[in-house]
Amino acid sequence: MATVEIIMGSKSDLDVARPAATVLKEFGVDVEVKVLSAHRTPSEVSALASSALERGVRVIIAVAGKAAHLAGFIAASTPLPVIGLPVKSSFMDGMDSLLSTVMMPNGVPVATVAVNGGQNAGLLALQMLSLGDKVLMDKLIEYKQKMREKVIDSNEGLEI
Amino acid sequence: MATVEIIMGSKSDLDVARPAATVLKEFGVDVEVKVLSAHRTPSEVSALASSALERGVRVIIAVAGKAAHLAGFIAASTPLPVIGLPVKSSFMDGMDSLLSTVMMPNGVPVATVAVNGGQNAGLLALQMLSLGDKVLMDKLIEYKQKMREKVIDSNEGLEI
Amino acid sequence: MATVEIIMGSKSDLDVARPAATVLKEFGVDVEVKVLSAHRTPSEVSALASSALERGVRVIIAVAGKAAHLAGFIAASTPLPVIGLPVKSSFMDGMDSLLSTVMMPNGVPVATVAVNGGQNAGLLALQMLSLGDKVLMDKLIEYKQKMREKVIDSNEGLEI
Amino acid sequence: MATVEIIMGSKSDLDVARPAATVLKEFGVDVEVKVLSAHRTPSEVSALASSALERGVRVIIAVAGKAAHLAGFIAASTPLPVIGLPVKSSFMDGMDSLLSTVMMPNGVPVATVAVNGGQNAGLLALQMLSLGDKVLMDKLIEYKQKMREKVIDSNEGLEI
Amino acid sequence: MATVEIIMGSKSDLDVARPAATVLKEFGVDVEVKVLSAHRTPSEVSALASSALERGVRVIIAVAGKAAHLAGFIAASTPLPVIGLPVKSSFMDGMDSLLSTVMMPNGVPVATVAVNGGQNAGLLALQMLSLGDKVLMDKLIEYKQKMREKVIDSNEGLEI
Amino acid sequence: MATVEIIMGSKSDLDVARPAATVLKEFGVDVEVKVLSAHRTPSEVSALASSALERGVRVIIAVAGKAAHLAGFIAASTPLPVIGLPVKSSFMDGMDSLLSTVMMPNGVPVATVAVNGGQNAGLLALQMLSLGDKVLMDKLIEYKQKMREKVIDSNEGLEI
Amino acid sequence: MATVEIIMGSKSDLDVARPAATVLKEFGVDVEVKVLSAHRTPSEVSALASSALERGVRVIIAVAGKAAHLAGFIAASTPLPVIGLPVKSSFMDGMDSLLSTVMMPNGVPVATVAVNGGQNAGLLALQMLSLGDKVLMDKLIEYKQKMREKVIDSNEGLEI
Amino acid sequence: MATVEIIMGSKSDLDVARPAATVLKEFGVDVEVKVLSAHRTPSEVSALASSALERGVRVIIAVAGKAAHLAGFIAASTPLPVIGLPVKSSFMDGMDSLLSTVMMPNGVPVATVAVNGGQNAGLLALQMLSLGDKVLMDKLIEYKQKMREKVIDSNEGLEI
Repeated sequence: MATVEIIMGSKSDLDVARPAATVLKEFGVDVEVKVLSAHRTPSEVSALASSALERGVRVIIAVAGKAAHLAGFIAASTPLPVIGLPVKSSFMDGMDSLLSTVMMPNGVPVATVAVNGGQNAGLLALQMLSLGDKVLMDKLIEYKQKMREKVIDSNEGLEI
Repeated sequence: MATVEIIMGSKSDLDVARPAATVLKEFGVDVEVKVLSAHRTPSEVSALASSALERGVRVIIAVAGKAAHLAGFIAASTPLPVIGLPVKSSFMDGMDSLLSTVMMPNGVPVATVAVNGGQNAGLLALQMLSLGDKVLMDKLIEYKQKMREKVIDSNEGLEI
Repeated sequence: MATVEIIMGSKSDLDVARPAATVLKEFGVDVEVKVLSAHRTPSEVSALASSALERGVRVIIAVAGKAAHLAGFIAASTPLPVIGLPVKSSFMDGMDSLLSTVMMPNGVPVATVAVNGGQNAGLLALQMLSLGDKVLMDKLIEYKQKMREKVIDSNEGLEI
Repeated sequence: MATVEIIMGSKSDLDVARPAATVLKEFGVDVEVKVLSAHRTPSEVSALASSALERGVRVIIAVAGKAAHLAGFIAASTPLPVIGLPVKSSFMDGMDSLLSTVMMPNGVPVATVAVNGGQNAGLLALQMLSLGDKVLMDKLIEYKQKMREKVIDSNEGLEI
Repeated sequence: MATVEIIMGSKSDLDVARPAATVLKEFGVDVEVKVLSAHRTPSEVSALASSALERGVRVIIAVAGKAAHLAGFIAASTPLPVIGLPVKSSFMDGMDSLLSTVMMPNGVPVATVAVNGGQNAGLLALQMLSLGDKVLMDKLIEYKQKMREKVIDSNEGLEI
Repeated sequence: MATVEIIMGSKSDLDVARPAATVLKEFGVDVEVKVLSAHRTPSEVSALASSALERGVRVIIAVAGKAAHLAGFIAASTPLPVIGLPVKSSFMDGMDSLLSTVMMPNGVPVATVAVNGGQNAGLLALQMLSLGDKVLMDKLIEYKQKMREKVIDSNEGLEI
Repeated sequence: MATVEIIMGSKSDLDVARPAATVLKEFGVDVEVKVLSAHRTPSEVSALASSALERGVRVIIAVAGKAAHLAGFIAASTPLPVIGLPVKSSFMDGMDSLLSTVMMPNGVPVATVAVNGGQNAGLLALQMLSLGDKVLMDKLIEYKQKMREKVIDSNEGLEI
Repeated sequence: MATVEIIMGSKSDLDVARPAATVLKEFGVDVEVKVLSAHRTPSEVSALASSALERGVRVIIAVAGKAAHLAGFIAASTPLPVIGLPVKSSFMDGMDSLLSTVMMPNGVPVATVAVNGGQNAGLLALQMLSLGDKVLMDKLIEYKQKMREKVIDSNEGLEI
C-alpha cells in the first residue's frame, strides 16, 4: 500500500517524476508511480482520486505539462493534499504548465513546486507526512543539516 | 433539448458567456447555459460531458478563467467538439486562462477563441453546425455581409 | 475534391502540418495540402478562401508562424470554420504565432489549437465533420478508447 | 499556542492573508498572524522559523509580494511545511511575487498557491493537518460537499 | 488626393490614430483617415492597398489591435512603405497587437512604432516623405529643435 | 558615398545585419556597414548621426541587442528615418532588444522590424527610397511578384 | 554643488524621482534634479554626463520609462556609478522600462533598482557614498534599525 | 582581507561569477569568492552579511538563479551596497532570477545588473570603490577609452 502516489500525465514525464520518487524512497516512504492522463483517462483519474483516502494514500503528487490539468483534476476529487509538479514543456519553458497548475480557484488548492522541481515535490510530501511522524521529522532535520554541510564543503579548493 | 450547451466555471463568468448565448439565439439555435465547475463539481461535469452526445448536444462551449481546466475536462469525456472561451482573469489579463485552455496535449483538442471572445465562441459553434445546415450557412454569409456594411458605414461623417 | 484543406504559410511548416493531414487520412477524409502565404500571395489566399464553400471544402486548417495572419485572413473570406495551427517560431516559442492566431476580433473566429498541435488540428476538423457523419463519430469514439488503453498499457513494466 | 502561523511581509498584505486566517478559524484551528519582513527584520524571521517546530507550530503560511523572499527565507530555517502565498503586486499582477515564491532550488520546497489565493493557502494548511486528524478530514470532506452544492444551487434562476 | 492614408481596423481606434493625423496636418501633408477591417472588409482593404500607389498615396499607416493583421495585410498588396501602429488592447497592454504587427516574415516589412504611438507614426511618415522634400526636412529639423527647447524649459521652476 | 548606413552595436551582430546589406546591394543601392556602440563609442555614434544628412545618407539601419539603445540614440540626433533591427539576444529570444527598440517616446520614432528581420530592414529602406525613385519602385513591384511565384512554385511536388 | 544628480527623462517622471531626492535630503546629501531626455536633448545629456566627474558629482540617478535609454546613455559617458530607476510605463507595468535599463552590454553597467523604486535608488546612492563617509554609514545603520522597529511595531493591535 | 566578496548560491554559478572576479583582479582589487546558499545555509549567509562591514568588506556581489533570494537576503543584514547578479536559469532565460533580484521592496535596495552580466557586476563594484580612490577612477577612465578603441578597431577589414 502506497503512502504517496505519484501520477504522471504521460510516460515521458518519468525523468521529472523520478527525483520525487527517489527522495521518498530514501526516507523509507512507500511510493507508487502511475501513468494516468486527465484528458485521455479521465474516469481512471477520477476513480483513483476518489478512492485515495480510503486506500490509505496520504499525499498525491501530480506531474504534468502544457495545459496541466492533472493536479487540479485530482484535487477536485479528494480531500488529501495534492502536490503539483509542473513539467518544463516546449512552450516558454513550462510557463503554461506552471500557470495551469498553480492558479487554482478558491476551494481547491494545489501545492505547487517549481517547474521540473521533482526533488522538492518529494520533500514537500515528506514534510507533510512528518507532521505526524517524529522519526521522519528527525530525518528531515538531518537532511537539511547535510545539505548545509555539502554547500560549505563545496568551498573547498574553490578557484576562480 | 439544447443543441449547444454553454458551461461556465462560475456564475461570475456570466458576462463573458452571454454574447455566445445571444448570437446563438439570434441564429435560432437552442442553447442552454449552466454553471458547473471542473474543480468543485467534477462528477457533474463528467456526467454532463459523457452524456452530451446521446442527449443530442452537438457543440459544447466551456467558459472558465485562471487555471481553466473546464474545457479540457469536458473534452476528455466527449467526442463532440468543445470550444474553449478563456475568461480574462485578474492575472496578466487572462494569460493563465488562455494557456490553460489552448495548450492541450495531443488527442484532445479544444477549439480556443480569444480571451473574453464570447461572441466568437458562439459564431464558431454556428459555423460548426452550419456544415450540415444550409439555412444556417446562408445566415452566416448574410451575417458577414452585414458586418462588412457596418464597417463601411462607420466611415460616414468620420472626423479626425 | 478535398473535404479539408490545409494551408501552410511556408513550405517550412510542413512538419507541423503533417500530423494534421495524417490523422485526417487515417479517418478516411479527403485532405489537400497547399503552400500559400497571406503576405506573399494575398490574392491566391483570398481566392482560395472565397471559393472554398462552393468547391465543397468543409473545414480549412491554416498553419502559420510569427505574425501569423493566415488563419484570420482566410476566416475573413469564408463562412466555413477555420482552424488556426500556430507554428513554434524562434521567438518565445511561438508566443507571437499564438497571439496572432487566437486573439481575433468579434465576428471572425479562428478555432485555435496548441502551438505545433498538428494532430489536434486534424482531430478538431474530424470532430466538426462528425456532427453530420455517424460513421466518423463512431471512429472518434473508438479513437478515444484506444488512447485510453494506450495510456493504461504504458503502466506495464513501469520502473522508477 | 498557534498551530498555524501566518507571516506577512507587510501590514498592507492583510487583505490577502485574511481569507487564510478566516478559513483556518472556521475549521477551529489555532492561528496567529504576524508582520515580519525578510528584508527589514531578517533576525526576527530567522528566529521565528528556527523555533517554530519546538514552539508547536505545524504549518507556516508566508504572505509576500514583489521580490517575495519571505516563504523561501522561512523554509530555509525550518523542517516544517511552508506555504507560499504570492501577493498581487503592481508589476505584472504579481508575476514577480509568483516566480520569487515558487521557483525554489532543490532541497527547500515552498508549497505555492495562486497569486492572492488566501483561502486556498488556508485550505492547504488544513489538508496537511488533516493527515493526522480524522475530525478535520471529515470537515474537509463536508466542505467540499458544500462547495459542490453551492455551485449546483447557483444554477437556480440563471437567466442569460 | 491624400499623400498619407491612415486606415483603422475599427472606429474605436480613432483616439490612437488622431495624433498621427494631427502631426501630418501640422506639417501640411494631405492625410485621409478611413475605417477598414482586415477581417470584416478584406476585399476593401485589398482594393485599397492594391490601388494606393497609382492613386498617389505615398505612405500608409495601419492602426489595429489584438490579432492586428491590418498592417501586414496592407503591406502584402502594395510596394509602398506601411507603418504599423499597434493599439493597446485589453490583453497584456497590447502585447498581442505589437507582436502581430512587428513579427512579419521576410519579404514584407511593416515599420512598427510603439503601442499607441500615434504621434510617432505620423512623424515617421513625415521622415519618409522628407527624403524627397527639402522643405519638409527643414520643418522636421525645426521640430526636433523645438522639442529640445521644450525639455530644457521644463526645468524652469522645477521643485522636488 | 553611402545612401544607407547600417550601424551594428557589435561585430557579433554581423549575421543579423548581412541580409539587410545584401538586399540593398541587390537593388543597386550604396550601403556602408559600420560597428559603433551606443554605450562604448557614444561620441562616434553622435557624430555619425548628426552628420548623416549632410553626408548624403538617406536612411540609417541600427542593429543591436539586449538593452538596444542604438536605434533610439541615432534617431535622437538626425531627422532622417531610422530603422531599428532588434537582435535575438540570449534573454527571451530578444524581447529585451525588441522592447528597447520599438517603445520609443513621442517625438523620436524608430521604424522597427521583426527580431533578426535583417532582410525586412533592407526592404523597408528600399521602400522609403523608392518614394522618390521610380526605377527602384518598379524593382520592388517585380520583387513582390517573384516572391509570389516562388511561393506558388513551392507547391510543386509537395507530398505530405 | 550636487553630490547626486537625478536626471528624469520627462517632467512626468517627477513622482517616481521624488522619493529618491527625499531620502537623499533626509541624509543631508546635496542633490539636484533635472529634466533631460536621451532622445530629445542628446547633446545636453552627453555634456552633463561627460562633465559630471569634474563637476564633483559622485553618483547619477537616471529616471526613465518605455524604451528607457537614459541610464545607459549617461553611463556611456561617465566613469561614475549610474543608478537606473525604471518608471512604470503603460505597457506591461514597465517591463519595457526594466529591460531597457538593466540588460546592459558588457563594459557599461547600470545599477538597476525596482520599477518605480525611487526610495531604493536614493538609498543605493547613499550606500555608495557611505563607503568613504563613516557618518553616512552610521546613519544608514540607524535607518535600517528604524525600519526594523517600524515593522515590529506594526504588529501592535493587529487584528484579522 | 577582501574588499569585494562574491557569494554564489551554488558552485554551478561559477562561470557567471568568474568575469566579475576577473575584472576586479585586473584592477588590483582584493576579491574573495564563496559558495553560500540563502536556502541551504541561511545562518552562514546571515553571519557573513552581518559581519561584512567590520571585516572590512566594501561591496558584496551576490550571484544566484531561479527564486534568487541571495542578494536580498544579504542586503537585509548589511548597510553595504549589494550588487545582484541574476543567473540565467532554465526557466525563461532567467526571468525568475531577474525579478527575484531586482524587485526589492522599499528600504533594501539591490543594485541589479543584467542576467549573466558578470563583468558588469565587477565593473559596478569598481565604480563604487573608485568614488574614494582616484587611482581606481583613472583606471576606469582608461578602461572606457580602451573599450572605445576596441570597437573602432573592429571596423578594420569589416566585410559584409
